[in-house]
Amino acid sequence: MKVAEVLHMNGGNGDTSYANNSFLQQKVILMTKPITEEAITSLYSSLSNPKSISIADLGCSSGPNTLLAVSNLVKAVDNHRKKLRRRHSPEFQIYLNDLPTNDFNTIFQSLPKHRREIAGDGSGLCFFNGVPGSFYGRLFPTDSLHFVHSSYSLHWLSQVPKGIEENKGNICMATTSPPTVINAYYDQFEQDFSTFLKYRSTELVKGGRMILTMLGRPSENPTCHIWELLALALNEIVAEGFVEEEKLNSFNVPLYTPSLAETKLVVEKEGSFTIDCLEASQIHWTGYNGTGDHEDNGGYNVARCMRAVAEPMLVSHFGEGIIDEVFHKYTKMIIDSISTRPETTQFINVTVSVIKM
Amino acid sequence: MKVAEVLHMNGGNGDTSYANNSFLQQKVILMTKPITEEAITSLYSSLSNPKSISIADLGCSSGPNTLLAVSNLVKAVDNHRKKLRRRHSPEFQIYLNDLPTNDFNTIFQSLPKHRREIAGDGSGLCFFNGVPGSFYGRLFPTDSLHFVHSSYSLHWLSQVPKGIEENKGNICMATTSPPTVINAYYDQFEQDFSTFLKYRSTELVKGGRMILTMLGRPSENPTCHIWELLALALNEIVAEGFVEEEKLNSFNVPLYTPSLAETKLVVEKEGSFTIDCLEASQIHWTGYNGTGDHEDNGGYNVARCMRAVAEPMLVSHFGEGIIDEVFHKYTKMIIDSISTRPETTQFINVTVSVIKM
Repeated sequence: MKVAEVLHMNGGNGDTSYANNSFLQQKVILMTKPITEEAITSLYSSLSNPKSISIADLGCSSGPNTLLAVSNLVKAVDNHRKKLRRRHSPEFQIYLNDLPTNDFNTIFQSLPKHRREIAGDGSGLCFFNGVPGSFYGRLFPTDSLHFVHSSYSLHWLSQVPKGIEENKGNICMATTSPPTVINAYYDQFEQDFSTFLKYRSTELVKGGRMILTMLGRPSENPTCHIWELLALALNEIVAEGFVEEEKLNSFNVPLYTPSLAETKLVVEKEGSFTIDCLEASQIHWTGYNGTGDHEDNGGYNVARCMRAVAEPMLVSHFGEGIIDEVFHKYTKMIIDSISTRPETTQFINVTVSVIKM
Repeated sequence: MKVAEVLHMNGGNGDTSYANNSFLQQKVILMTKPITEEAITSLYSSLSNPKSISIADLGCSSGPNTLLAVSNLVKAVDNHRKKLRRRHSPEFQIYLNDLPTNDFNTIFQSLPKHRREIAGDGSGLCFFNGVPGSFYGRLFPTDSLHFVHSSYSLHWLSQVPKGIEENKGNICMATTSPPTVINAYYDQFEQDFSTFLKYRSTELVKGGRMILTMLGRPSENPTCHIWELLALALNEIVAEGFVEEEKLNSFNVPLYTPSLAETKLVVEKEGSFTIDCLEASQIHWTGYNGTGDHEDNGGYNVARCMRAVAEPMLVSHFGEGIIDEVFHKYTKMIIDSISTRPETTQFINVTVSVIKM
């Protein structure tokens, strides 16, 4: 699997688009808003009346969330500026990054209206740039960034780990994965996350900050229930004879969900950043944390959300023919899990706030 | 006509795409290469070992030309660096700008291979950014650019001039346009070009440079023969009853082809730049300056090139139905003009090289 070519959310604005099925990722951005605001206002306070502030959102995707995070950052700076009684708003140079297959056209065509929404009364001018490329490579000039934000992107690896042929019947780390597979996944994560930190440390100014939120896990248990269900759905398709077993065995997703301890370890080992804050949070698959009301269509929406994320990868490996059937089965499994095993239907988020030394 | 929404070249990579029909624009970039190289190497010499150089291409469109100009600039700097025996290559921050309706996705998906071609042995890293927006507004932070390049874009106005209801039967300035129409077009050009210069002067560092090439005209004669032929083709469609006369009368193209004197006047009046060089050049519609060999399909190719440029505007105003027929007639007229009135089938280019004071 060429990750750079197939790892992209569903484009456009249609029914199965990521733009219309990313409520969960939106909730996560809102949940981490306090820690993000604290980081950007600390940064702003530490700069003496900066003429401009460069902010990058890495793995921005295409949809309403693309501008949500940066909009919050700009507003936080402007509110803090008023508190500090600084007279001049900085200009904001905003870099929206994702892989080249991301639907940047849709982002760009939505900008004119957001430009007004973001640059509210008195806040500085915002300049928007699309930056196509993998964040596991260099993206920006040396010492050119003040702030990096990345939400629900860094759990995607640069490639499917090598040496996981034994991961039969699974599509990522799972309860039945042999230890060699788990180790191969961890090694790939360590290498990728270290590379990410190294490049960003070159690109950030001294004292620059990053807030990174990944899909993580609570314990040493390596499984990710929602992806295991997708594997189950695919196994049913194999059992029904629509896909060969070998085809499924050769499909693995480049996903690693780190624990808090693993995240801390890699940041410390790489050595360019100090950790300001490291925390785990938890969100129900439906985004509503089990509080009732809005959950009637919960399972259905979760399945659509997963489809917007996984469809390009599945189509690339299995072709278009099985997609509707896979997601039909998958939706039923998700709805069933939510009602019968609610304790397993939570996402764990790992958020780390770091400062460039 | 909402220029920002309909003024874009045909996207994608298909038969009628701009990407496959922009040989003329390519020739123009190659013709102005000496003056462009002279400007970027002078700039590079004037900077003492810069860590990075920011280059913007304004109106970059989507196709092979998008990267041609910036690739030449990067190579020129690297060759000059070797002559100056400077050891460290600067990094290049490259901004590719066009209106938000431009097909940035196609540019971005072609970047990985160009990245290798552009960043040749020893040259500095190149970072690519897409910048959606009108160059008649602010696009970049204050003092953030070293070099601006724009080829065959600035003859496009920000809007169709107001007060040109009398321009009946024409679609831009023409021999039969009344003086009020010619004046309205000039006023719009003066206002737009001044605005452009003002914003760029804010964005460029002191000593920063711009090379601007526009479709121009040789004398006070305001007509542009190739667009007059398109008007003729549209008038035939009206005469045949497929389009109402009123519909054609309300269609005007936001295009102004300035003379050398007008270009000089506006730059001097605006006052932020000194003119380093101002020159006119001439290129046959077919791009081959009448030297034979390749001209068999010349007229046909010219018509395809014009279609790639004009189709979105025509579709937006007249609908899709007439397009094939218009271009069928137009192609015949172009072929006829080339063979019977070769002296009229030349484009005049105005190129100005300016330095930020």
